[in-house]
Amino acid sequence: MAFKVGLLGLGTVGTGTADILLNPSQRHPLLKELEIHRVGVRSLDKARTVNLPPELLTTDLESIVTDPEVDIVVEVIGGLEPARSLILQAIAHGKHVVTANKAVIARYNDEIFTAATDAGVYVLIEAAVAGGIPVIEPLKQSLCANRLQTITGIVNGTTNYILSRMQSEGSDFNAVLADAQQLGYAEADPTADVDGFDAADKIAILASLAFGGRIKLEEVHREGIRQITAADITYADKLGFVIKLLATAKRDNPTFDEALNSDQLQVRVHPTLVPKDHPLASINGVFNAVLIEGDPVGQVMFFGPGAGSGPTASAVVSDILNIAAILKVERGSAVQANGKPLLDPLLACSHQHYCTIAPIEELETRFYARVLAEDSPGVIGRLGTCFGQHNVSLESVVQIGLRDNRAEIVVITHHVREGNFRQALQEIKAVDAIADIPSTLRVL
Amino acid sequence: MAFKVGLLGLGTVGTGTADILLNPSQRHPLLKELEIHRVGVRSLDKARTVNLPPELLTTDLESIVTDPEVDIVVEVIGGLEPARSLILQAIAHGKHVVTANKAVIARYNDEIFTAATDAGVYVLIEAAVAGGIPVIEPLKQSLCANRLQTITGIVNGTTNYILSRMQSEGSDFNAVLADAQQLGYAEADPTADVDGFDAADKIAILASLAFGGRIKLEEVHREGIRQITAADITYADKLGFVIKLLATAKRDNPTFDEALNSDQLQVRVHPTLVPKDHPLASINGVFNAVLIEGDPVGQVMFFGPGAGSGPTASAVVSDILNIAAILKVERGSAVQANGKPLLDPLLACSHQHYCTIAPIEELETRFYARVLAEDSPGVIGRLGTCFGQHNVSLESVVQIGLRDNRAEIVVITHHVREGNFRQALQEIKAVDAIADIPSTLRVL
Ligand SMILES: NC(=O)c1ccc[n+]([C@@H]2O[C@H](COP(=O)([O-])OP(=O)(O)OC[C@H]3O[C@@H](n4cnc5c(N)ncnc54)[C@H](OP(=O)(O)O)[C@@H]3O)[C@@H](O)[C@H]2O)c1
Ligand SMILES: NC(=O)c1ccc[n+]([C@@H]2O[C@H](COP(=O)([O-])OP(=O)(O)OC[C@H]3O[C@@H](n4cnc5c(N)ncnc54)[C@H](OP(=O)(O)O)[C@@H]3O)[C@@H](O)[C@H]2O)c1
Repeated sequence: MAFKVGLLGLGTVGTGTADILLNPSQRHPLLKELEIHRVGVRSLDKARTVNLPPELLTTDLESIVTDPEVDIVVEVIGGLEPARSLILQAIAHGKHVVTANKAVIARYNDEIFTAATDAGVYVLIEAAVAGGIPVIEPLKQSLCANRLQTITGIVNGTTNYILSRMQSEGSDFNAVLADAQQLGYAEADPTADVDGFDAADKIAILASLAFGGRIKLEEVHREGIRQITAADITYADKLGFVIKLLATAKRDNPTFDEALNSDQLQVRVHPTLVPKDHPLASINGVFNAVLIEGDPVGQVMFFGPGAGSGPTASAVVSDILNIAAILKVERGSAVQANGKPLLDPLLACSHQHYCTIAPIEELETRFYARVLAEDSPGVIGRLGTCFGQHNVSLESVVQIGLRDNRAEIVVITHHVREGNFRQALQEIKAVDAIADIPSTLRVL
Repeated sequence: MAFKVGLLGLGTVGTGTADILLNPSQRHPLLKELEIHRVGVRSLDKARTVNLPPELLTTDLESIVTDPEVDIVVEVIGGLEPARSLILQAIAHGKHVVTANKAVIARYNDEIFTAATDAGVYVLIEAAVAGGIPVIEPLKQSLCANRLQTITGIVNGTTNYILSRMQSEGSDFNAVLADAQQLGYAEADPTADVDGFDAADKIAILASLAFGGRIKLEEVHREGIRQITAADITYADKLGFVIKLLATAKRDNPTFDEALNSDQLQVRVHPTLVPKDHPLASINGVFNAVLIEGDPVGQVMFFGPGAGSGPTASAVVSDILNIAAILKVERGSAVQANGKPLLDPLLACSHQHYCTIAPIEELETRFYARVLAEDSPGVIGRLGTCFGQHNVSLESVVQIGLRDNRAEIVVITHHVREGNFRQALQEIKAVDAIADIPSTLRVL
């Protein structure tokens, strides 16, 4: 029995989502049980890059969220309305919901989650923060034993791209923004990104999850990056800092000191001088990273692509699969043939076969080799010839120096077959002028 | 109704686990429904740092895994036997199992997971790889939509500590190992770590999850770090690399090219030259990191503490809570008062109140301020006095240069109250010699 997905939106994220659903090979087997039932769009005439039967498309989005056959509604149209109303309608009709819409979740979380709990349906939002980087689910599940203290994130790719370029080029904000707009890294109206609204939405969502309470968006302190000058970046650099737009949520009383008796939070977005040796300092370009501190886990950091069709769709479809896994256990016979409980296919081990492992000789990799040889003129040529005869091409051969009266030569190969490299080494070891090959290491 | 935990082992990880279970405040509310029912140890006489009623302790571990009242068995005794047999017995008695034991899971996964599936119980293993860093659950759930291609990890803290010190100090392996043993970063018998056995166990587990098949541990290619010399580290450094013990699992056919028709894997542990600008190159000391590449997510990296009592217990207890969440939905009335389905308390939104957010004036942070002033001798002193009167103490005041005939002064404060800093700024702006304060930024 297939689980039916009603997809609202077939833009950047919707197309990526459909792509995964239509290509389940080598992904989790549960994907094969998902089916795109309807797709809601604004225009039926637009050319689409994804290969869907045209009769699946409709401009009547309400008909999707009320369709009795649909199990899971995926909202990737964006904007506040009609997204909010469609989500609420889907919930009212008993659909589980997956959404990438941080703007709606940050503003209407109270209304939406109250409705979802009342209706007994899930609303999953992994894609709403930090795109492809798992952060919502780790906060909810993998880190749930912790007393969370601080979340600090670079959660807006556009501003991080602009600041990274200002840093590396010494340019001013307006010049880099204009270029970023041309290159498609910033929107024509960049307000949501550069004034910190997008980051504020995201940190409000993360704070709510981390600290188990709702957040009023208007209470989030928000500053953007328009006022950052090339001079500030230069001075910060001299003092050992880089400037990043950080979104921070923090308990005022992180150690749970009963005497302090405060459960106040700080939730804020503003440009920040970050010491260069801090893990967030080296996150550059459009990448996102989220650093979470908790007791007793300490500091963990998640890093990756914060946006884009594929990464965001990865998060959307993982949420769909999490719901499908729950539905699979709940529905029909929740027992196996042997009468024992049916297990959640994502949490249980669902495979039984053994993988085929390639022998190490078949590995294609670069190699480093350190060779000790007589300090005679022909040696490097001799090495090159031996490697060449075994199809091992060299990236560099450097005579580093002399050690115990012998020439110490360091070789880096191109990507070569390990078996060939080993054969070449055997042969080289037999060469009179070669005294020893004390180390060979693989190169990433 | 409480969920009863039978804890096998009260050493490093067991103590950390008990600590969390006994201190649920400010953690997930579901923790309050967990209860330590029995604790199995080797010696009843040992002094314990955790405050448990002595009658909970027993040396009869079988009595715990067969106890009809126990819901979840947590195995943190380590070693192969009796750990393996106790896990199998627990499964046979219908208990869900949480274990941190990579050695057992890497060797007996076939036996254990087959038994678990047959019995309809979960065996969760988040703590077995990379300690406190969420990586098992993200692979199973958050990234499950992807066609995973490569997993590359620094998953052994001892070897990474040794290599990092060899790198920073130029020392040789044996010297650093001896010191690491003294400091407690390496065991008296360091074989499991330095010869790559521990990393091999872990990459076998990750490969199995990522590629959905079992892995024969003896097919994992394994090399340790004993042969790495100070000379290799120096030469690698000159060539732009650092040396890391990497554990790698990779599909031979990453793009799923049907023509290639290969589903072979590479699974291997060996020291590797890593380019200095690669994200894994900067992971130093006992930290762990796992880089996952998938289609369409791209590259995501997880970074944090790979071992230790608290971090490992964070993973163990999260697994316990995941099982408790499932049991909560399954058991008794799986419907709410309104007749709608009861939701998994980790996946659903379980709070309804609003958090209290502190006003930004109450923030304690460092500040950066750029001040333009008349180039007159008393100005820096004047600045210091104004800040001082508002309890804003300064870390540094530097006159960077002249701009438009004015002295450009950059101030970094210590941690100060934002309200005080703002008041000081107001006053400073009114000083005649101060022309402008074009930027103020917070410092992490
Ligand atoms: N893009 C990213 O990298 C990214 C990352 C994380 C989260 N998100 C979130 O994902 C959501 C979608 O973003 P996107 O970039 O995929 O947007 P997009 O490319 O603009 O696509 C929007 C889609 O929704 C449809 N649509 C919009 N309004 C509609 C309406 N009123 N009625 C019917 N159809 C409507 C559009 O139909 P037509 O195709 O007919 O125009 C289009 O298919 C947003 O909430 C965004 O914040 C995006
Ligand atoms: N330590 C870490 O940072 C870390 C990180 C990740 C995973 N792990 C894994 O977690 C597991 C536990 O490690 P650990 O460091 O906590 O070990 P540990 O400190 O040596 O503690 C072992 C505990 O198990 C008990 N025990 C051992 N053998 C027993 C037996 N045959 N019968 C009864 N009790 C027995 C010991 O009892 P007594 O107290 O009476 O001696 C002790 O309480 C191992 O599988 C390890 O690989 C550890």
